Amino acid sequence: MPSDNPIGTFFAPEAVALVGARSSPGFGYGIPLILKKRGWEERLFLVNPRVGVLHGMRVYKSVADCPAKVDLAVVIVPAPQVPQVLREIGEKGIRCVIIESAGFAETGEEGRRLQEEAKGILKRYGIRALGPNCVGVVNTDNSFSTSDTLDEAMIPGNTAIIAQSGVFGNILLDKLPSEGIRISKAVTLGNRIDVDETEILTYLNGDPKTEVIMIYLEGAADGRRLVETLKVVSRSKPVLVLKSGRTEQGVAATLSHTGSLAGVDAIYDGAFAQGGGIRARTLAELIAFAKVFATQPLPSGPRLGIVTGSGSMGALATDAAVRAGLVIPPVSEATLREMRGYAPSWMNIRNPLDIGPSGLFEPALAAVARDPTIDMILAIFTIPYAVLLTLKGMGVEVRQRLGELSALRTLAPDKPLVVCVVGHDEFVALVSAEAAGSNIPVLTSPEMAAEALAALWRYRRWRERAIGG
Amino acid sequence: MPSDNPIGTFFAPEAVALVGARSSPGFGYGIPLILKKRGWEERLFLVNPRVGVLHGMRVYKSVADCPAKVDLAVVIVPAPQVPQVLREIGEKGIRCVIIESAGFAETGEEGRRLQEEAKGILKRYGIRALGPNCVGVVNTDNSFSTSDTLDEAMIPGNTAIIAQSGVFGNILLDKLPSEGIRISKAVTLGNRIDVDETEILTYLNGDPKTEVIMIYLEGAADGRRLVETLKVVSRSKPVLVLKSGRTEQGVAATLSHTGSLAGVDAIYDGAFAQGGGIRARTLAELIAFAKVFATQPLPSGPRLGIVTGSGSMGALATDAAVRAGLVIPPVSEATLREMRGYAPSWMNIRNPLDIGPSGLFEPALAAVARDPTIDMILAIFTIPYAVLLTLKGMGVEVRQRLGELSALRTLAPDKPLVVCVVGHDEFVALVSAEAAGSNIPVLTSPEMAAEALAALWRYRRWRERAIGG
Repeated sequence: MPSDNPIGTFFAPEAVALVGARSSPGFGYGIPLILKKRGWEERLFLVNPRVGVLHGMRVYKSVADCPAKVDLAVVIVPAPQVPQVLREIGEKGIRCVIIESAGFAETGEEGRRLQEEAKGILKRYGIRALGPNCVGVVNTDNSFSTSDTLDEAMIPGNTAIIAQSGVFGNILLDKLPSEGIRISKAVTLGNRIDVDETEILTYLNGDPKTEVIMIYLEGAADGRRLVETLKVVSRSKPVLVLKSGRTEQGVAATLSHTGSLAGVDAIYDGAFAQGGGIRARTLAELIAFAKVFATQPLPSGPRLGIVTGSGSMGALATDAAVRAGLVIPPVSEATLREMRGYAPSWMNIRNPLDIGPSGLFEPALAAVARDPTIDMILAIFTIPYAVLLTLKGMGVEVRQRLGELSALRTLAPDKPLVVCVVGHDEFVALVSAEAAGSNIPVLTSPEMAAEALAALWRYRRWRERAIGG
Repeated sequence: MPSDNPIGTFFAPEAVALVGARSSPGFGYGIPLILKKRGWEERLFLVNPRVGVLHGMRVYKSVADCPAKVDLAVVIVPAPQVPQVLREIGEKGIRCVIIESAGFAETGEEGRRLQEEAKGILKRYGIRALGPNCVGVVNTDNSFSTSDTLDEAMIPGNTAIIAQSGVFGNILLDKLPSEGIRISKAVTLGNRIDVDETEILTYLNGDPKTEVIMIYLEGAADGRRLVETLKVVSRSKPVLVLKSGRTEQGVAATLSHTGSLAGVDAIYDGAFAQGGGIRARTLAELIAFAKVFATQPLPSGPRLGIVTGSGSMGALATDAAVRAGLVIPPVSEATLREMRGYAPSWMNIRNPLDIGPSGLFEPALAAVARDPTIDMILAIFTIPYAVLLTLKGMGVEVRQRLGELSALRTLAPDKPLVVCVVGHDEFVALVSAEAAGSNIPVLTSPEMAAEALAALWRYRRWRERAIGG
C-alpha cells in the first residue's frame, strides 16, 4: 500500500525503478530475481541502457522511460554515475530513492565530495534518500526487499532492525531466523545522506507490525534528537541498542566505514538510559535480548525464581542476575510445603532450586510459576547426554523429562520465562525444537539469560517512571 | 600404568573395584558397561551382594572377595551405606577411593555428620578420597572414566578439566568435543572430603598430556594454598578459572550444592591475578578461552591486527580488544604499499582492515601475518549467505573466498590467530568445518574473540614477570 509518509514509501512503494540492473552476478542481477520471485514483477522496472531483457523482464534504457507510477528508485550503479542518475530520478518526479552504491564519504575526500554533490541534487529535487553505502530495506509484510535476502528472513514477525551498516543488517537477517526471531521490517542506513535513525524510529513506532526494535549504531546523526525520539518510542516499544565506538580506537575504526563520528561512550550510555533504550554490550547480548523482548511480557517486579538441573549453573545465573539488579527471594512457605510433599529428602528446597537428577523440572517450574513471591522464571536444563541416551533407550522422551514447554508458558502468562539449556549440541537442539513456536526463548548462556531478564525489568521500571505503568 | 602418586592412581589404576554395580538403570549399570566397552573388563571388579552377573561380568559379593591387585575403589552405593563400604575398602588394603554417592554435607546436618564419619574412616585407614557427590575422573590416555562419558569426549587432547561440581564436569564433557576441544583428563571434586583442587593442579602440572587446565570453582578449599599452587602451575601451563559465588546470593546458591563456602569475589579476583590464573567471567568465555589457549602460541606483544568483512564487526572487536588492554596499531608502511598494489580504490588500508565485498581475505591476512608491527591476528568472516549461495552457484567454494585456513596457521606460526565467523548458521558451520583440525579456533562472537586474545597477552605478561619469558 502506498504511503503519504515518505519513509512509508521506502517500505511499501507502489512501483520501483531499479537503476543498475545487470546480467552478470551482483546486486543488479540478484535483486531483480528475488523481487520477481516474491511477486513484484508487475511493479518492478529495471533500468540499464545496455541490457534489453533480464530474468524475462524488460530493461528500460533510462529512468525517463519508466511508467509514471514509480515512487521509489533503488540505485546500484557505480558511485561516479550516481549524481547523474539522481538528476534523472528528480526529473522523472520520483521522490524516494535508496542509494545502495558504495564509494562515498566512507572512502575519503573524493567520496565526500561526491556525497555532497549528491546531497545537493536530492535537495534541489526534494528527493528523500536512504544511503548511500547501504542495502536498503526489508518489509516482510509485503515481501519487499532491496537486498538478496533468504526466504526464511521474510517470514513476518514482530521485530524490526535498524542497522547503520549494510553488512550488519545482512548478518542479522542471516542469523535471526535460526534464533527464532522473525522480522517485521529492516533498514540499513549507510552514510545517512538524508534519512537517519530518528526518522526510522518514529516510523516504526507507528508501525503496527513492529513490537520490538533492534538498532546498531556507530554514532548518532544527532544525539539530542535521538534521545528525544527514544524517549517517545520507548514509551510503547522496547528499543534494543548495540553501539560500537565504545573506545577511541573503536571510534577510529568506524570513521572509514560509514563515515560517521562516534561520540564519547559514557555520554551515549547516559543518553540511552535517559531515553529508555536498552543497551546491549555485545552482538550476542543484542540477539539474546531480542529473543526475550520479542516473546516475553514485562515483569511486575525484580524477583527471579531459578529452577536448575545443576547447582553450578544456578550459581552462575544468580551471580549475573544479582549484578544486573535482580533479586533472588526465598520461595514462599506454600511452595516449600507443596514441594516437600514430593521432593526427595536430599533436595534443598530453595531459590535457586537445584533439582539435581530428580527429573522434577515440571512440578518445580509449575510451583515457581504459581509462587506469588516470584516475578519471573529462569529454567536451566542440564541433563548429561549419556543420561538422555539412557532415558531414550528406556523410551522416555525429553518432553517427559522436562515437561511440556508450551504448557509452561501458559502456567503464568504474566511472568517472563526464559529457558537456558547447557550441554551437548544435540540436547540443546532437542530442547530448542521442543520450544519452537511456544514463545519461550531458549538461550545457551545462564549469565546472558539472567541479564536479559534483568533488562526486561529495567525497561519496565523506566516505562513506569515515564508513563506510570 | 600404576602410579606411586595416589592422585595418579585415580587416573590410572591397576585394577578397579566398583561398589554398587546394579542391574537396573543408573550409574551402577552404565559405568560397568562403558568400562567394559573401553577395554577395562579384565581390570574391573564389580561388587554387589545381590547381583551375580552383570553385562557378562561376575559380580563379587563384597570388596573382600576382589583380587588383591585392586588399587582404586569407585563407590556408588546410597550415602548411608558408604561408611561400611569404606571400612571394607580399608580392610582390603585399597588406598584410593572415588565416592560418587550424593547425600553428604551438601544436603544438611545429617549429611554433614555422615561425611564426618566417612572422613574419620578414611583417615584411620590412610585412604585418599575424591568426592563425595562427584562423578570422579576421566583419563582419555587409558580410556578410563568413572562416569558414563560419550566416545567423542574420550578422544585424547591437551586440555584438562577440574570441576567442583559433577554436573558441571558432565556439561563440559558433553560440550567441549563439538567446540573442537579435546580432553586429557577431567576430575570432579564434589564435597572435597580429602583431595582438593590444589593437589589435582599439582598433579596436572606434571602430566605430560595436559597443556591447558580449565577449572570451575565455587570456593577454594584453602585460598592461600590455591594461590601458591596457581603460581607454580601457571609458570608452565595456563589455568583458566571460572568461579561462581561472585555475589552474596551466588555464594548462598552454592552452599547447599557442594557444601563449600565461597569467599568474597574481589579477593578471588586478586588471588587469581596474583597466581597467574586467567579468570573467565562466564561459562561461554571459559570455553572460548580454552579454544584459544589450547591451540594458539602466546603473543610476543599486545598489538592486534584485525581483518574483517564488515566494518561494524571490526569496530565491535576493536572496542572489546582495547578495553581488554590490547593495542590496534596502524599497519606498517610495507603492508600499506603492498596492499595498495591490489586493493580496490575504495578500500581504506588500515587496522582494522575492512575488506568489504572485495573477497581479499587471503592476501589481506597474509599481509597482516607478515607485518612486523602486528603480534596477533583476528580474522572476522562475514559473507551474507545469499552471496555465498550465489558464489556456490558459480562454482566458487568458501575456501576460495576465504583462503585456505590451514595455510593461514603456518604463515605466522608465532602469532596467535583467531577466526570469528558471524552470520547464517550454515556459513558458520562451513567455516568451522573448513578450520577443523587446523589448530585455528573458530568463535562466533567478535567481542569474545578479542577478549580471548587479550587473555593470551595478559598471561604471557604474567609469565614474563614470573619467569622472565
